Amino acid sequence: MTWEKIAEDKKNRIAASIPPAWRIESLPTEDSVMGYPKTSSIMSAEELDITESSAADLVAKIAAGKLTSVAVTTAFCKRAALAHQLTNCALEFFPEMALARAQELDDYYQKTGKTVGPLHGLPISLKDQFRIKGLETSMGYVSWVGKYDTEDSVLVTLLRKAGAVFYVKTNVPQSLMVCETINNVTGRTVNPRNKNWSCGGSSGGEGAIVGFRGAIIGVGTDIGGSIRVPSAFNFLYGLRPSHGRLPYAKMANSMEGQETVHSVCGPLTHSVKDMRLFVTSVLAEEPWKYDSKVIPMPWRQSEADVIKSKLSSGGLTIGYYNCDGNVLPHPPILRGVETVVSTLKKAGHDVVEWTPYKHDYAFDLINGIYAGDGGTDIFNTLKESGEPAIPNIADLVNPSLPKVDVNSLWDIQLKKWAYQSEYLEKFRLAEEKLGKEIDALIAPVAPTAAVRHNQFKYYGYASAINLLDFTSVVVPVTWADKNLDKKKEGYEPLNPLDKLVQDEYDPEAYHGAPVAVQIVGRRLTEERIMAIAEEIGRLLGNEITP
Amino acid sequence: MTWEKIAEDKKNRIAASIPPAWRIESLPTEDSVMGYPKTSSIMSAEELDITESSAADLVAKIAAGKLTSVAVTTAFCKRAALAHQLTNCALEFFPEMALARAQELDDYYQKTGKTVGPLHGLPISLKDQFRIKGLETSMGYVSWVGKYDTEDSVLVTLLRKAGAVFYVKTNVPQSLMVCETINNVTGRTVNPRNKNWSCGGSSGGEGAIVGFRGAIIGVGTDIGGSIRVPSAFNFLYGLRPSHGRLPYAKMANSMEGQETVHSVCGPLTHSVKDMRLFVTSVLAEEPWKYDSKVIPMPWRQSEADVIKSKLSSGGLTIGYYNCDGNVLPHPPILRGVETVVSTLKKAGHDVVEWTPYKHDYAFDLINGIYAGDGGTDIFNTLKESGEPAIPNIADLVNPSLPKVDVNSLWDIQLKKWAYQSEYLEKFRLAEEKLGKEIDALIAPVAPTAAVRHNQFKYYGYASAINLLDFTSVVVPVTWADKNLDKKKEGYEPLNPLDKLVQDEYDPEAYHGAPVAVQIVGRRLTEERIMAIAEEIGRLLGNEITP
Repeated sequence: MTWEKIAEDKKNRIAASIPPAWRIESLPTEDSVMGYPKTSSIMSAEELDITESSAADLVAKIAAGKLTSVAVTTAFCKRAALAHQLTNCALEFFPEMALARAQELDDYYQKTGKTVGPLHGLPISLKDQFRIKGLETSMGYVSWVGKYDTEDSVLVTLLRKAGAVFYVKTNVPQSLMVCETINNVTGRTVNPRNKNWSCGGSSGGEGAIVGFRGAIIGVGTDIGGSIRVPSAFNFLYGLRPSHGRLPYAKMANSMEGQETVHSVCGPLTHSVKDMRLFVTSVLAEEPWKYDSKVIPMPWRQSEADVIKSKLSSGGLTIGYYNCDGNVLPHPPILRGVETVVSTLKKAGHDVVEWTPYKHDYAFDLINGIYAGDGGTDIFNTLKESGEPAIPNIADLVNPSLPKVDVNSLWDIQLKKWAYQSEYLEKFRLAEEKLGKEIDALIAPVAPTAAVRHNQFKYYGYASAINLLDFTSVVVPVTWADKNLDKKKEGYEPLNPLDKLVQDEYDPEAYHGAPVAVQIVGRRLTEERIMAIAEEIGRLLGNEITP
Repeated sequence: MTWEKIAEDKKNRIAASIPPAWRIESLPTEDSVMGYPKTSSIMSAEELDITESSAADLVAKIAAGKLTSVAVTTAFCKRAALAHQLTNCALEFFPEMALARAQELDDYYQKTGKTVGPLHGLPISLKDQFRIKGLETSMGYVSWVGKYDTEDSVLVTLLRKAGAVFYVKTNVPQSLMVCETINNVTGRTVNPRNKNWSCGGSSGGEGAIVGFRGAIIGVGTDIGGSIRVPSAFNFLYGLRPSHGRLPYAKMANSMEGQETVHSVCGPLTHSVKDMRLFVTSVLAEEPWKYDSKVIPMPWRQSEADVIKSKLSSGGLTIGYYNCDGNVLPHPPILRGVETVVSTLKKAGHDVVEWTPYKHDYAFDLINGIYAGDGGTDIFNTLKESGEPAIPNIADLVNPSLPKVDVNSLWDIQLKKWAYQSEYLEKFRLAEEKLGKEIDALIAPVAPTAAVRHNQFKYYGYASAINLLDFTSVVVPVTWADKNLDKKKEGYEPLNPLDKLVQDEYDPEAYHGAPVAVQIVGRRLTEERIMAIAEEIGRLLGNEITP
């Protein structure tokens, strides 16, 4: 079969997995499809309610016998079916398997009066890197279509033990190394808020489906922004934990075995409360007993409580930067950072300027790591089926690029370590000067609000954090506004890349696009950073009060 | 200058750093030099007492004003001077700097009535990988002689903050990749218990100096047994923590930047009590704020308490193996394992056989990692001065060896991760079968008791633990005994390497050599494993009661 036929067949199979009753007869023509579930007659009022609830509420209601898993799973399957038809977000959709599992869980509850775990009955969406026994993981590579998994990824095993229901696996860009979502198997996933905008990437299918509330919690991965950019572009919270906090074993990946900068997995949610439900549920399963890379570090409530106690006495100390010295963010993002800074100040917190330390160096260093094998791994995967490289990564998969040798890689790793440790020193020095601890940094996630297709040009705001392996939580802030976010006049670009990014800004095109920031803490500070993100969300009015 | 001249000059400078009053006029001819300090007139009775005390007692006495740091430092400087003259263990010796620092600390205590930290006034010995501003770190490479450090290693900074006094840096084998201690700069370090035995390696200088009580706590590093083998060969306790527990930043190393299997640092001591003093003191300085690779994990007393509570109710569950399937240990080591097993059983603990999981595969895998660059790094360092490779590593530094390329390295890393996770599964399955947690494994450290020079052939007992990144504590057990440890008759060797090791056993030559085991726990279980090691030491009568 030609690669085109394989892709066509896969697309048809995804379409066929949607039951006839959930199919949209004529697709809407509006740019935004966010209102579709309410106006169509496919979902019931109760189903709309369920999907617009929170995960924390849903598991509480299921555990109290007020809702069944079948009802909740049905609601999300329906809304996911709509999401896929409207945004092209799914790579695998398996409502039958999901409903059978939901029924099992309901039966168990019926019989015992107990739940199997803290996620009992809750549907969770997965990026198509997670393996589920019996299903395909194609990751958007034509040559991987038709490869059926023989075992679960560790996170899948543990989520299942905690009671989760799986029903959909979502779209990714070819190779995962891009912050938009397009591949040769199913094409492009669009932003449910505006089909002209990207849903972000690489966990873009998750961004779209959670943004559309076709999922209440989605799980993505992040090696250079791949959880954070889709979170930001879809007005979601997103957690990029530090490496070693959550299990990654037995997942599919490009460049498997690359350990210089680790990809990590984490949730995309509508609230920190749901994020916490996810993280505490996974940690309660002791993932370090399954995946050797996971650190034996249970949920540390005492760390979250440090933030709570600062909130009730003296307040937080927060650093911020709105430009990393490489690329100036667009006006909506600058306003986003300012909004958070002024909101925090108004609430009595100490907010100080942070000088980004050699982010240009960090950007070059991590790019060298990403391209360490000259794209050999990706190139070989494409060659297997004959599919072409998507334009965004064509320059990454040129096998004539020099590979780094082992000694050069060691040199890069040494530089990484030195850079990370120097960054820690900057923290120590700043803290000495302030006479107190810096609780977090506020920074842009990307230089743009939800970007127009093929226009994502600079991921340095995200990837610097990956190089540092710092913890980061994305907080949705506001929306681009053509009346507030005028194009800068007479700005002198910092460099050609900055010029490219600045030139692309068009207040009209971006009007209404989600704007977010990331809250960044040192390595393995998930409990504290989530608590701070929750407070910022609460102050902004974008967070469910805990 | 020729490399021989550079080496000669360095040796002369070390010799000259010993004050005339501490010089031995005629070297003893006995095989063991352990009794020398008592019979020579160089050390006073009080100095002998001090050096035969424990670190915990010494810091308590200094903190109570009953001893000065100058007195303690003088005692250890003298005994270290003897150690060097008798075993050739030092690469840097700087008593003047040490005594000035001790005086400062005494003055501070005199003035304020306070200590600067939990190690106030305590001399600590360092392997010559640790950098101290103003001193040389040659690591036994001729080309590094004369390179003076411009900053401290992070662990040095933190130990200094905690109050430690530095006075000596000790010998290592060329390249560090050998479990004996010999280089072209100062030659060979011998075992103070018998000059015909190795002191172990690569932290062999530490093994010799702590074994001789020229140091009360020594700090070594371990990537394939380099803390554990010298501990075992010198009847010491030794901790190989999991990677990320103690800081390694800014140290010298061979193959710097190699991250596939991390070298780690840890203490060699006479008791777990002193080991705990060291670890808690370092963790109290929050090393994760200085070294990006350190996990923010303070001392977890609750983990140690889990073991304490098992000891007082129901007992421990311990697995053991005495053969890894590659090389059978010599009779003294087999008896050592049996001794620990029967001692634990007698004390009411549950001791079960553990089947080593693919240790042959682990041995091959880690060897591929060690040789990943075809020895380029070491080769280049040797080339700089023209010194030859020591025989043990000659085959490692052949630049015509194939280097692994980046994709192959990723493949190795993937295999490592899978192997580690499979090993965790073996634990889970065994625990399911037993219906309870396995608290630790007991295993040989090396196939031999303190080995004769140039006879160390197999480090797989140690390196499998490095590949797994498990926590390991060495516990001294007994002494080889020609009357008990007869040569096995009619044994069928497992393979040619096993035959080589078996053939080397000579009950007469090994008579009296230290025998140890390692107590192994999953990753980052330092608190638990130290508590178990302490109990085993107590049961064997080799541990100071806490």
